[in-house]
Amino acid sequence: MPVKVFGSPASAEVARVLTCLFEKDVEFQLIRVDSFRGPKRLPQYLKLQPHGEAITFEDGNVTLVESRKILRHIADKYKQQGYKDLFGPGALERASIEQWLQTEAHSFDIPSADMVYSLAYLPPDMPLDGRGAGGGLLPAAGMHPSHRQKMEEMLQLFEKSRKDLGKLLDIYDQRLGEEEYLAGSKFTLADLSHLPNADSLAADPRSARLIESRKNVSRWWYTISSHDSWKRVKELQRPPSAEAPF
Amino acid sequence: MPVKVFGSPASAEVARVLTCLFEKDVEFQLIRVDSFRGPKRLPQYLKLQPHGEAITFEDGNVTLVESRKILRHIADKYKQQGYKDLFGPGALERASIEQWLQTEAHSFDIPSADMVYSLAYLPPDMPLDGRGAGGGLLPAAGMHPSHRQKMEEMLQLFEKSRKDLGKLLDIYDQRLGEEEYLAGSKFTLADLSHLPNADSLAADPRSARLIESRKNVSRWWYTISSHDSWKRVKELQRPPSAEAPF
Repeated sequence: MPVKVFGSPASAEVARVLTCLFEKDVEFQLIRVDSFRGPKRLPQYLKLQPHGEAITFEDGNVTLVESRKILRHIADKYKQQGYKDLFGPGALERASIEQWLQTEAHSFDIPSADMVYSLAYLPPDMPLDGRGAGGGLLPAAGMHPSHRQKMEEMLQLFEKSRKDLGKLLDIYDQRLGEEEYLAGSKFTLADLSHLPNADSLAADPRSARLIESRKNVSRWWYTISSHDSWKRVKELQRPPSAEAPF
Repeated sequence: MPVKVFGSPASAEVARVLTCLFEKDVEFQLIRVDSFRGPKRLPQYLKLQPHGEAITFEDGNVTLVESRKILRHIADKYKQQGYKDLFGPGALERASIEQWLQTEAHSFDIPSADMVYSLAYLPPDMPLDGRGAGGGLLPAAGMHPSHRQKMEEMLQLFEKSRKDLGKLLDIYDQRLGEEEYLAGSKFTLADLSHLPNADSLAADPRSARLIESRKNVSRWWYTISSHDSWKRVKELQRPPSAEAPF
């Protein structure tokens, strides 16, 4: 019985797991539920879900719902197939992979998702020059108070996530100056786990600078995002009706 | 609880039902199962299934598996919403719609699916000039016997379906010279039911002539295929990985 993944590839949680399944050459079924009403509405999954929609993963008797646990399960159970270094050849490498997996989960995931979320609310042409939230950036008049309040919140969220991510990525840049990948000389789960959110950052010029301005992070991002497994997931994320001709 | 459709939009059976749900502005969930293995394989639903993959339709306690029965169910149950003339305003219209629905199911469906199926096997540049199957069309040498046999079969299937469809579409052309749509002056289930297979015919220049060479059929096809509901289904049919960049 093949592995089953229930969820939308637009979810970061699901995208992480699909990338891993492609890397490990594991046969699987993707079960998607899309909701529609009438010819004018768009499917609910049209927008990427930066904070991660639910995933359910079934492999025989095992059922898991957290993407990084699922990554570990796949890399362990299918260690003999596909790309073999995903979870390291030995205990030493695994400790380093585990450390960076946890850094991703605890320090990278939330600020990167917050930044993508806040940018979805902020007008693309608003100058985000680091002067702090609301520092004269919002027009003085002509904005509904509740709208203004939401925008202020989003500006604050953007500033906070930019600061947190900037500090974190400085550490990444240093690390990636010493090693080609986060956990050493090989592409591993540690790198893979960053793909969905890093891709969202890279997709918007306002957040892409965080990556592009750091030489080693930028080189690393270019390499890991060129994997066929990730390109394949990106194709699956393409909403079927986004380019509908009406 | 919303209506549930289990199946791939690439199936003619499913496409027929989705078009009807869009026309009737019915809220529904589409549950798709796609199978994958490794970055190099394509999903199984990449090719349209001219003979119709399975569909399962659930609406409360009602479960149905035949697309035309499902069309009747939707048009009846949701008669007060969306496009209201799909199953006619009264019994007289309904008799005519029913007659053409049955013509589609019993006389149009199989030869049109057969033609699409046979064309998938025949080289695009093979001259199909109506001289009959195997009439000197296959090269004399350089073809494996089992391949030759399959090609002969496909040529015969193509010729038979072309003959059957030609006769049928002559009747359609006459009817559509008297009325704008098959069952009268309104677009109904009778027309809608033809969309998936007629679209497959129209997509290949070798079969499109059947439509294009008949003035009234051609005008009718242009009109019905321009419905937003159908364009929406076509977008859903687009396989997510067909244009993968690797």
